[in-house]
Amino acid sequence: MSINSFGRLFTVTTWGESHGPALGATVDGCPPGVPLDAEMLQRWLDLRKPGQNKYTTQRREPDAVEILSGVFEGQTTGTPIQLMIRNTDQRSKDYSDIMEKFRPGHADITYWQKYGIRDYRGGGRSSARETAARVAAGGVAREALKVLVPDLEITGCMVQMGPHKINREAWDWDQIAQNPFWTPDAQAAQDWAAYLDELRKSGNSVGAVIEVVAKGAPAGLGAPIYGKIDTDIATAMMSINAVKGVEIGAGMGAAELTGEDNADEIFMGNDGKPVYSSNHAGGVLGGISTGQDLVCRFAVKPTSSILKPRQTITKSGQSAEIITKGRHDPCVGIRAVPVGEAMMACVILDHVLLHRGQIGQNRGPIG
Amino acid sequence: MSINSFGRLFTVTTWGESHGPALGATVDGCPPGVPLDAEMLQRWLDLRKPGQNKYTTQRREPDAVEILSGVFEGQTTGTPIQLMIRNTDQRSKDYSDIMEKFRPGHADITYWQKYGIRDYRGGGRSSARETAARVAAGGVAREALKVLVPDLEITGCMVQMGPHKINREAWDWDQIAQNPFWTPDAQAAQDWAAYLDELRKSGNSVGAVIEVVAKGAPAGLGAPIYGKIDTDIATAMMSINAVKGVEIGAGMGAAELTGEDNADEIFMGNDGKPVYSSNHAGGVLGGISTGQDLVCRFAVKPTSSILKPRQTITKSGQSAEIITKGRHDPCVGIRAVPVGEAMMACVILDHVLLHRGQIGQNRGPIG
Amino acid sequence: MSINSFGRLFTVTTWGESHGPALGATVDGCPPGVPLDAEMLQRWLDLRKPGQNKYTTQRREPDAVEILSGVFEGQTTGTPIQLMIRNTDQRSKDYSDIMEKFRPGHADITYWQKYGIRDYRGGGRSSARETAARVAAGGVAREALKVLVPDLEITGCMVQMGPHKINREAWDWDQIAQNPFWTPDAQAAQDWAAYLDELRKSGNSVGAVIEVVAKGAPAGLGAPIYGKIDTDIATAMMSINAVKGVEIGAGMGAAELTGEDNADEIFMGNDGKPVYSSNHAGGVLGGISTGQDLVCRFAVKPTSSILKPRQTITKSGQSAEIITKGRHDPCVGIRAVPVGEAMMACVILDHVLLHRGQIGQNRGPIG
Amino acid sequence: MSINSFGRLFTVTTWGESHGPALGATVDGCPPGVPLDAEMLQRWLDLRKPGQNKYTTQRREPDAVEILSGVFEGQTTGTPIQLMIRNTDQRSKDYSDIMEKFRPGHADITYWQKYGIRDYRGGGRSSARETAARVAAGGVAREALKVLVPDLEITGCMVQMGPHKINREAWDWDQIAQNPFWTPDAQAAQDWAAYLDELRKSGNSVGAVIEVVAKGAPAGLGAPIYGKIDTDIATAMMSINAVKGVEIGAGMGAAELTGEDNADEIFMGNDGKPVYSSNHAGGVLGGISTGQDLVCRFAVKPTSSILKPRQTITKSGQSAEIITKGRHDPCVGIRAVPVGEAMMACVILDHVLLHRGQIGQNRGPIG
Repeated sequence: MSINSFGRLFTVTTWGESHGPALGATVDGCPPGVPLDAEMLQRWLDLRKPGQNKYTTQRREPDAVEILSGVFEGQTTGTPIQLMIRNTDQRSKDYSDIMEKFRPGHADITYWQKYGIRDYRGGGRSSARETAARVAAGGVAREALKVLVPDLEITGCMVQMGPHKINREAWDWDQIAQNPFWTPDAQAAQDWAAYLDELRKSGNSVGAVIEVVAKGAPAGLGAPIYGKIDTDIATAMMSINAVKGVEIGAGMGAAELTGEDNADEIFMGNDGKPVYSSNHAGGVLGGISTGQDLVCRFAVKPTSSILKPRQTITKSGQSAEIITKGRHDPCVGIRAVPVGEAMMACVILDHVLLHRGQIGQNRGPIG
Repeated sequence: MSINSFGRLFTVTTWGESHGPALGATVDGCPPGVPLDAEMLQRWLDLRKPGQNKYTTQRREPDAVEILSGVFEGQTTGTPIQLMIRNTDQRSKDYSDIMEKFRPGHADITYWQKYGIRDYRGGGRSSARETAARVAAGGVAREALKVLVPDLEITGCMVQMGPHKINREAWDWDQIAQNPFWTPDAQAAQDWAAYLDELRKSGNSVGAVIEVVAKGAPAGLGAPIYGKIDTDIATAMMSINAVKGVEIGAGMGAAELTGEDNADEIFMGNDGKPVYSSNHAGGVLGGISTGQDLVCRFAVKPTSSILKPRQTITKSGQSAEIITKGRHDPCVGIRAVPVGEAMMACVILDHVLLHRGQIGQNRGPIG
Repeated sequence: MSINSFGRLFTVTTWGESHGPALGATVDGCPPGVPLDAEMLQRWLDLRKPGQNKYTTQRREPDAVEILSGVFEGQTTGTPIQLMIRNTDQRSKDYSDIMEKFRPGHADITYWQKYGIRDYRGGGRSSARETAARVAAGGVAREALKVLVPDLEITGCMVQMGPHKINREAWDWDQIAQNPFWTPDAQAAQDWAAYLDELRKSGNSVGAVIEVVAKGAPAGLGAPIYGKIDTDIATAMMSINAVKGVEIGAGMGAAELTGEDNADEIFMGNDGKPVYSSNHAGGVLGGISTGQDLVCRFAVKPTSSILKPRQTITKSGQSAEIITKGRHDPCVGIRAVPVGEAMMACVILDHVLLHRGQIGQNRGPIG
Repeated sequence: MSINSFGRLFTVTTWGESHGPALGATVDGCPPGVPLDAEMLQRWLDLRKPGQNKYTTQRREPDAVEILSGVFEGQTTGTPIQLMIRNTDQRSKDYSDIMEKFRPGHADITYWQKYGIRDYRGGGRSSARETAARVAAGGVAREALKVLVPDLEITGCMVQMGPHKINREAWDWDQIAQNPFWTPDAQAAQDWAAYLDELRKSGNSVGAVIEVVAKGAPAGLGAPIYGKIDTDIATAMMSINAVKGVEIGAGMGAAELTGEDNADEIFMGNDGKPVYSSNHAGGVLGGISTGQDLVCRFAVKPTSSILKPRQTITKSGQSAEIITKGRHDPCVGIRAVPVGEAMMACVILDHVLLHRGQIGQNRGPIG
């Protein structure tokens, strides 16, 4: 298994560096007959694209995706889909100052320790730019899911910026597309704008928490023990740049609950399917989906490329102070929203396909 | 890849049900020449074993592990190591009441929805008993690591029970082995004992947070993008029964930090290796280990098998009330401590082997 | 992926040594609801069992298989099935003479070169005894296929012993179970008996060619490019001990054909499915099954453990002469017949499951 | 694991269709620090390139490979290497006649049966053009092997065309580069030229046998039971378009040998390493390399696209006669020679890396 791949039947291998000729994703295992063209994918890339407002890096690239294979006459053929995004804005000179110094909190030093090679151009493979390839691949997954699970709806949003959490009572799905932070709380959007402005001006950055919800996933997805759908969701999110924590349902807060509080009670719904009194489980029991909303959250750490001076060392082991100029995101979590959605789409599609492969028999009478 | 396996070069496949004839682990990829016998593994199993005090299930089994293959004249041969634990205390009658009803918060319903088959005997494959196989496999990993990374030390402990967190100022590594909760805070151990007693008597249960720390792991382990060591640690922990959240280093709290606060500053140590002012990164940058302590935490939800009555449905879709009798853990997180350690050992060994395979060249001058 | 595993969705990991406590197979990915018990598997093991006539090794073991997990109330549950066969006849003393010497043509020397460890007890992991585990696993696959592809029929037979090929004109399927060589040619069975008697008495051994035919496999199994069903069949057969060549359909003989002769012409059958004028393709085009018989052959080299003296070296590098006493097969190919059948069953089941996973849409109007 | 990938630590995923915008290979797991540029790869592609003489298809394409990622300042970085070859000569009109008809012996019908989608443009994914991507990836493997195993030499050649085998007594390695058939027998080259001319003029085609030899591979590569190096070589070769049989060492001929004849006797060489009296084993015992030449052969069937009329059916199930016009290879085996070399290079590199990962200890004193 390539260490740059994820997925079992629907597999995605991302490739490419921040400042190389191109980056992309090799997408294998998409079922045949799915309508697909580049515009369908471009739509999601445009959401992730930097430079759209003052809260994201000012690097400006069209991030235009090309489909090089696997699609014929507007439909997937069942063969590998190669997605390529050319890098066009490669101002490497911005990074010349950090050729010798390691940025604290950045992968500079560990890549050097592991590989003995330093691609100083904007982080090379460790750049958040790699996530563009994920978003493109997620777009393929979404189109396949439209065919296979038409009712599925995947939505990501920001629920915390720095220490500031949203008010969950004020949750409004329609707000998400209305503000630059993809937050469902209109008041939070206003407050965060002021907060982030100040941080940005001071050359600092801040972390965030993203929540991704999938509505309409069928019961029965996932498999014990190491193919649990919640494990796979956690894996997918943790693999995103800068993510330091992942939660399913009640998440870390599950530790505080009693068994009585935690157990989501079960009733029969009008459509003959089980309904639940609550969703502490985040839609997963024993690694298998219940049919409730799949809910996950992940924490994105603050960008380490900041204007604040920090102590570090050089490649030759000398002490040094570093300030990272260049065009960076004050809250890189913002751009992680569409990435989280893309990962969720990939995991769900993979499990829909796996479920079909695993189960040759009737399922139980309820699901 | 078997869905009951984890690992890339050091792979573990667990098998077996709570009340079947036996359970175990097929361990492949252990290097040859590692001294190994059953007692070395038994030691770890004894730590996880239920029934040792009033805070864990009263099911009493010796959990004696047999090595069926892969060891010759006291050494591993490089071939698969089969570990088997016979089930001896299979009081299936305890569960007869729940043959028809689904326990809220338990995998009963999803297994039924997915497989159309119900192994009502103590949860079958979804039982926490599966973790015995993990602990045995982790024991193999530990012995291999003793040879390959002699300085490595892996320690798990409980840092939160229900809403009660430890006082980190009072952290004392030596306390961990002194109390039934494996907590480094002596005062917390006392407080939790009283708290848990009460919960247990009321037939309720509660969640917990476990922290696992690996000291002495070399820099350079892990690989971008989907083979990151922190992702693999998170995957391993999330795959444990009842885990709902995983954190690396600052974890979910990273969202609250500014870039200035989060960036662990770098200095040169006296031994020519980098040292850091702090460890918000949890020992990992860009998915590759820094040489600092690897730190992860995970939240374990409360046992869903409780004496408190809850609403549920039956297999035939009728409403019902359920009380789960039987012998259960009031805080199953306690027994998750050695499981977390075992998973950490497996992941680190896998990455030590992977690193050797990936890198055919010199590493950089610092690492 | 464990290096002792094969398969993608239906995976088999074999474990165990010739003279250890036990050997077996961890079988994962079997669909739920398949009727299964130990007797169903024992039937196939009995066919492979040594000591049944004078043409196979006189080692006598019951080779009784136990199912340790994955089956509940007579049905598979969808969880891993652990199969264990205890070793009971472990006369290690037979091998004491070869502790220091490497048998020419045997894996003794390469295991030593690779692992620096020598399990001299009957070949350890490299013993043909490993194939018992494959046969047991293949039995599971056969039971699942009975449910999923009821018309499928898998038959192996011997078509060549030493230089003596069968007369294909005399092919009679019913003969296969009537002679100790599983050959469809009654006359060949008689001739081979005399030939092998002589070889056996002289302490020599000889090779063979096995053919395995699967009738009734549906069209559409397999996937380009590295998941071709013919590649997977070849992989499975080549992984069997002592196999040195594998052929699909016309096999090596395809080199001699012209395009005109090789192309199996296509017609419409009465049932609306394609029929073919011939089967040079062995039932596979472009890695995908056509619906014709899947046909593969493999060559098994002669046993290297013979009474004839051969030149070799010792572990310490001294020249030596070696005669391998002990109980060996004069034509180990005989016992490879049920092994080849088992591997074919595993590959076909895996591809049936994969096909279900890969294809979420309608297939074409013909298949 | 993507079904369009092969390899464990060094993985190659090929993508692209005959007449799409581009095709290529995603190469992951190449160690860092290997000198690499596009010219190094182009050299091997030029060997495989069609249209170089009258014996290969007259399609003319530069087949220029671009390296899109994974290389920085002339060296591999340890991150995925994306190789892209644009398709420039896409005369789709040549194929318009076969949009409805299935070519006998071709994957047309099975792709249709499996996917329900027909990429009639030159075979789409099933075209031999896919092998260009393999050759490019093999070029990467060769460069890495230059660093890791400097003495390794991999050479492929044709040893049989149609019924005409070479005279092995006349084997001359230097002849291989001197004739259009890459055969080591000068006389055969002359005879085959006349034979193939006639076939080509008559619109027919013919099969061939290719032999690939790797000199200088160290002992100890490969691993029992399903990670045997000979199994992996067989898998790699069988996955090539049109291959119907694979042999290691004595191959299918091993069936004819006695144990006495087959066992390669062992002696101590002057350099303290074992030497062998013969190489029936093809350099592999028990799935592990001995240090002798690794020898494999594979049979390539004749091209099914021929000018001879054949009976077939259409997509709608009507009987039809078909003649395949267009530009095809009378002996596609010729172009399989560099492909076989490339696959051998990939397998050996993968096993060199695996061996480093698997073995953490000293190896035995001989190897």
